[in-house]
Amino acid sequence: MRNYDLALIGFGGVSRALAEIISNDAARLTAQLGFTLRVVAITDLAFGSLVQPGGIDLEHVLALPRGSDFGGLPGGSAEPNNREVIQGCTADIVVEATFTNPSDGEPAASHVRWALESGKHVTTTNKGPVALHAASLGALAATRGLAFEFEGSVLSGTPILRFAQQMLPALTVTSVEGILNGTSNYVLGRREAGVSLEAAIAEAQQLGYAEADPTADIEGSDVRLKVAILAQQVLGVDVPTTEIVTEGISGITDADIVEAAAQGLRWKLVGSATRTAEGGVEARVRPVALSAEHPLAGITGPTNAVTFTTDLLGQVTVAGPGAGRVETAYALISDLVAIDRAASQRVAPEDELVGLFGATL
Amino acid sequence: MRNYDLALIGFGGVSRALAEIISNDAARLTAQLGFTLRVVAITDLAFGSLVQPGGIDLEHVLALPRGSDFGGLPGGSAEPNNREVIQGCTADIVVEATFTNPSDGEPAASHVRWALESGKHVTTTNKGPVALHAASLGALAATRGLAFEFEGSVLSGTPILRFAQQMLPALTVTSVEGILNGTSNYVLGRREAGVSLEAAIAEAQQLGYAEADPTADIEGSDVRLKVAILAQQVLGVDVPTTEIVTEGISGITDADIVEAAAQGLRWKLVGSATRTAEGGVEARVRPVALSAEHPLAGITGPTNAVTFTTDLLGQVTVAGPGAGRVETAYALISDLVAIDRAASQRVAPEDELVGLFGATL
Repeated sequence: MRNYDLALIGFGGVSRALAEIISNDAARLTAQLGFTLRVVAITDLAFGSLVQPGGIDLEHVLALPRGSDFGGLPGGSAEPNNREVIQGCTADIVVEATFTNPSDGEPAASHVRWALESGKHVTTTNKGPVALHAASLGALAATRGLAFEFEGSVLSGTPILRFAQQMLPALTVTSVEGILNGTSNYVLGRREAGVSLEAAIAEAQQLGYAEADPTADIEGSDVRLKVAILAQQVLGVDVPTTEIVTEGISGITDADIVEAAAQGLRWKLVGSATRTAEGGVEARVRPVALSAEHPLAGITGPTNAVTFTTDLLGQVTVAGPGAGRVETAYALISDLVAIDRAASQRVAPEDELVGLFGATL
Repeated sequence: MRNYDLALIGFGGVSRALAEIISNDAARLTAQLGFTLRVVAITDLAFGSLVQPGGIDLEHVLALPRGSDFGGLPGGSAEPNNREVIQGCTADIVVEATFTNPSDGEPAASHVRWALESGKHVTTTNKGPVALHAASLGALAATRGLAFEFEGSVLSGTPILRFAQQMLPALTVTSVEGILNGTSNYVLGRREAGVSLEAAIAEAQQLGYAEADPTADIEGSDVRLKVAILAQQVLGVDVPTTEIVTEGISGITDADIVEAAAQGLRWKLVGSATRTAEGGVEARVRPVALSAEHPLAGITGPTNAVTFTTDLLGQVTVAGPGAGRVETAYALISDLVAIDRAASQRVAPEDELVGLFGATL
């Protein structure tokens, strides 16, 4: 059976959830995937780095207490050594899940570049390198014949990038718009229920939806990065994030809420990218009072959704979780499946291909 | 460039929409598909049959007035001659789009069988053969190495069967439920607005959503066939349609509507198939008063939607059109793409494979 060795760059919630799935559920996962996974390297700002080409005991490292580090383990160091580990380890695939830097995508973008330059496939859930460097990193991957997959960068495990690429053949997509941030959507729902902005944000923090600093969620900069990714991946146009006019939800007053409700409208923070008559794309983030018939109007709470407007099929919407440790770890798993499929197809004998695609044949 | 010759069985709204797209938009369609389409045979109860191995002039046959027939044309006959045409024509792919027979799926099931037995791929939008004979027809197709595709049998062009097959790798789907009939969903929305059942049905008929006899839409038998297809294609379990307990929306009273609204609930006609602890599937069709947080609660008007409940990802919903001539014709086009992909992959050289799947590689 095929096996892929992984390097986990960043060992926070998402990477740990992936490690737990691989460690706790190995037999079932292998049966569903048709291949095995083994972690041979981990780096993390807090824990340092750990390189064990024979496979890391995930149960052991998952049980390490906060504040400890990998320093005392064989192949371990208290320093992350990201570049050295990414370039030098024996992993087939680098899993990039460090923090998002909305300014320049670093150091995640360098992590991706080092991985590709040293012949390793990449999967990431990190918006930064994708929103800001997808074109150059994608070109690098293509040149090397490697995969650069990032389904989790927009709607966690909800497969909207792959949906756009594979489920809408022979259609022209004229616009893509979405509810791309669960915190702001939850807050707007609570605002409609009469709760103040401050109290709603506090609730979202208690529920674990919102960060300690909720600015990126509430003021739209998180959505802006996702709109840049959608514009590039769905419409094929690079839109610099600085050109995406962005307005968050903090300016919506109680009166706005009451007035919209009286007309049967619902405020939503909508990120959108629409083709223009001139062949470009207009991308923006703003609160919109949607009529009940709009496909995004019924998306409530922390759920996210993306609506594709097409020529022959009209509007099609995919809704699902947009965050969550396990849900985002699933995005990585779906990327690993895509990497395996592409890799297998290059070398697969004819009968294996029929097996892969012959479900209804 | 690859070409596929088509036989259109049934020349009603959907087949005509497909013929219009092929005829009016050939250059753009070819560019998007990467292959050409040519219609070499048409049969229809009203028009009879027409077989022209060199390609039928679609503009001409689309302009034929109602009440005329193919009798006077070269290769034409006033009789449909379905069996003879399907078995004997030179088509690569048979497009089955005759009426749905909910009892035994005939004659569409025979059309599919004749096509497969004579070495032709099949695409259909017809619920009958799929809901009642998918297992045997699928086995026949597999034996012959042919495609049997039917994306349009559940949600017209909205790709929910292919979504389940391809977009949820390594997930266990525990239940699938949907709003699978646009007419009844439109009527329920109007009922909430205070309109009587009879008046709402009349409106739906005027808008072209409902048939002259709306029984199949209102009483749930249309949804029942779709639930059978979902149970088989998504959960892998054959459920006879006679075992699907079915209740339509005609029993919902004004008091039911008022009471639900007072609790913030919305009545929806839900078709569902859920895995049971015993390894079987419980399938049913019934009106349910859904809370606003349910992913199907916000699906309004003629829009349809399917929610998949999964282990790692929770609930994911795909919403879009569930009817319409062009939207359903698009389902056929998406099937033709799937047939081409599978056929190409069996014979494709390595470099062509990389081209097909290497978008992000």
